[in-house]
Amino acid sequence: MRILILGGDGYLGWPQSLYLSHKGHEVAIFDNMTRRLFDLERGFNSLVPIGTLHERMQAWKEVSGRSMNIYVGDTTDYDALGRAFQEFQPEVVVHFAEQRSAPFSMIDRKHAVYTQTNNVIGTLNVLYAMKEFAPACHLVKLGTMGEYGTPSIDIEEGFIEIQHKGRSDVLPFPKQPPSFYHLSKVHDSHNIMFCCKIWGIRATDLNQGIVYGVETDETQLDARLATRFDYDQIYGTALNRFCAQATVGYPLTIYGTGGQTRGYIHVKDTIRCIELTLSSPPQPGEYRVFNQITEQFSLLDLANMVVEHGRTRGLHPEIVHLSNPRVELEQHYYNATHTRLIELGLEPHLLNETLLESLMQLAIKYRDHIDPRLIAPSVNWRHITNTVSAEGKSPSMM
Amino acid sequence: MRILILGGDGYLGWPQSLYLSHKGHEVAIFDNMTRRLFDLERGFNSLVPIGTLHERMQAWKEVSGRSMNIYVGDTTDYDALGRAFQEFQPEVVVHFAEQRSAPFSMIDRKHAVYTQTNNVIGTLNVLYAMKEFAPACHLVKLGTMGEYGTPSIDIEEGFIEIQHKGRSDVLPFPKQPPSFYHLSKVHDSHNIMFCCKIWGIRATDLNQGIVYGVETDETQLDARLATRFDYDQIYGTALNRFCAQATVGYPLTIYGTGGQTRGYIHVKDTIRCIELTLSSPPQPGEYRVFNQITEQFSLLDLANMVVEHGRTRGLHPEIVHLSNPRVELEQHYYNATHTRLIELGLEPHLLNETLLESLMQLAIKYRDHIDPRLIAPSVNWRHITNTVSAEGKSPSMM
Repeated sequence: MRILILGGDGYLGWPQSLYLSHKGHEVAIFDNMTRRLFDLERGFNSLVPIGTLHERMQAWKEVSGRSMNIYVGDTTDYDALGRAFQEFQPEVVVHFAEQRSAPFSMIDRKHAVYTQTNNVIGTLNVLYAMKEFAPACHLVKLGTMGEYGTPSIDIEEGFIEIQHKGRSDVLPFPKQPPSFYHLSKVHDSHNIMFCCKIWGIRATDLNQGIVYGVETDETQLDARLATRFDYDQIYGTALNRFCAQATVGYPLTIYGTGGQTRGYIHVKDTIRCIELTLSSPPQPGEYRVFNQITEQFSLLDLANMVVEHGRTRGLHPEIVHLSNPRVELEQHYYNATHTRLIELGLEPHLLNETLLESLMQLAIKYRDHIDPRLIAPSVNWRHITNTVSAEGKSPSMM
Repeated sequence: MRILILGGDGYLGWPQSLYLSHKGHEVAIFDNMTRRLFDLERGFNSLVPIGTLHERMQAWKEVSGRSMNIYVGDTTDYDALGRAFQEFQPEVVVHFAEQRSAPFSMIDRKHAVYTQTNNVIGTLNVLYAMKEFAPACHLVKLGTMGEYGTPSIDIEEGFIEIQHKGRSDVLPFPKQPPSFYHLSKVHDSHNIMFCCKIWGIRATDLNQGIVYGVETDETQLDARLATRFDYDQIYGTALNRFCAQATVGYPLTIYGTGGQTRGYIHVKDTIRCIELTLSSPPQPGEYRVFNQITEQFSLLDLANMVVEHGRTRGLHPEIVHLSNPRVELEQHYYNATHTRLIELGLEPHLLNETLLESLMQLAIKYRDHIDPRLIAPSVNWRHITNTVSAEGKSPSMM
């Protein structure tokens, strides 16, 4: 299939592109490089060194004999986006090209506006480009489990049957997103559902959990094919970040009590989920939602696993509870259904010693790259102006 | 109270401003004049002649002895918006400053992007300006009943208790908005709910039905105080438009079968609802939703009422069913709860002969101003490019 990967230079977009190219698909990457720009502006970095997109592409050609098209462009630039659609004529668009950090979106007004403009208007443009240039194309859109928030009832996959006053209907699952970033994904979901209805577009919205792990079969073929490993307060997510912290003797920073429970998924499963999704496309006009997670953990569960595992490696990780910079429940019910991808054939890699060990090994290998000033959270949800840089402030203790 | 009215030069913003000024409140209007610009660009007009904002203000001063501040600015320009907040120090912000036409938002990609950018980013800026410059201020935001779509269960006021697999929670009512415009209001609702939660802002989201009528006690004090009467395909809404059509012998244009049922409200009630809302503000951090309608009608109900009433005036209105340019159900369940404003003291003006007569009189008085070329719908939800101008096309018959 001809697959256009929007945001194909990112943490997930890159290993996804490699995987699909390796499987024999014709892959093109569309990316605006802003993820790398943020690092340059603020003095952030990836724990594992990564090549430029052009270096990566060259390495992939050498390793696999296969090549991919590159479009450097922005989804908010309809001319650039439309040209990629016209030229490449995708049969599937996998859309990772969004600002994907909750803390980034909460830095200040400009970052909130950037996040919602880039994500919502960018996706609107993708929908128009599909309708205009590739109406049979299947949109595989990365959403987030965070769209649902933490309701006191079970979370279903996108829709829920509601009984009310003697009648019933199947309606979109109510959304309670916890940041301007998560809000942007909710806005996207509503826009996409509508375009499927009016234009007959086909789309799958993947409400993905927190992804951990950085290595896939393809990235391990050559060091130059590595994807990024973020451990900082803006882009670093729970498990990856804890492993990095443990290796440099930085306490594992839990925001609040640590009872916050979320869905998680290994990077290899994420990539496989997308393959399964594009192999079984929805009907024209169909908008479907899959919850892309494999298991649930609380923050404290994860931190304890890293503490225990660290001890077997001679590390002595400690846990510290910081005053929560976010506004969220710290003890709550959480149970999210996730059967549709299993039904399509997903065989999950559940979090175990082997997966933890491979992550920890990588963190130890590159621990000299860790800048501890990037770890402490300096973005507080309650403030409208926050400072973020390698010259970060100390966290306030609980 | 010091009340800042965003969009105070519009169809509803203007009579709202007059009413609150008349009641002794200190009122300031913030408006970017784009509603008038659209008319200038496309050759559209208001059936009832209206003065410029400055002429209106002068007339109001002469008639009432009261004046209002004017800020000409755009909500997407944070500097301009912030200056108005800092200078005027509002205790209440009534937010009408959105692109408010569904067909406008469906013209083409640029109009969709404009609608969502103006509405969503504009409202984000309003939220930041409140938090930064007037944190105790009460936001009274105009939403729309269209946010809910037409579910097969009763529509509640913003939230619904859901029983599911032995548990229950009160969650935001699921949204199924039917245009990029309605979608923008759903996005706003989610953003506002979130800001109340994280910043302790207080807000009331008024999910308003379709407003009819153009005269209020204040606009009738002087012809120069009139508000606009839209009868065209873009801004004209059901009842007002039907009256205008009847007076010039243009068939009453129903899109599809006419079974589409919606909530309606008279302009005088809209204005009173907002007064009731600001007199009983929510607690800090509270986000509440009122359904601002007084009764429900199908399109066919309304058209039949205009036909009957027209006959008593010697007119002979006909009904014509056009192929529906929208994508919507034409026969559906519809029952929307609307008790919260009644509980606050609203005494509805229900649609009756007197209200119809006053609307019809006004339409007859100005019927020479009607340009029949503006009436037929030329924006089709299924197309991504539509043409709109005074050189409109003929409608296609069913």
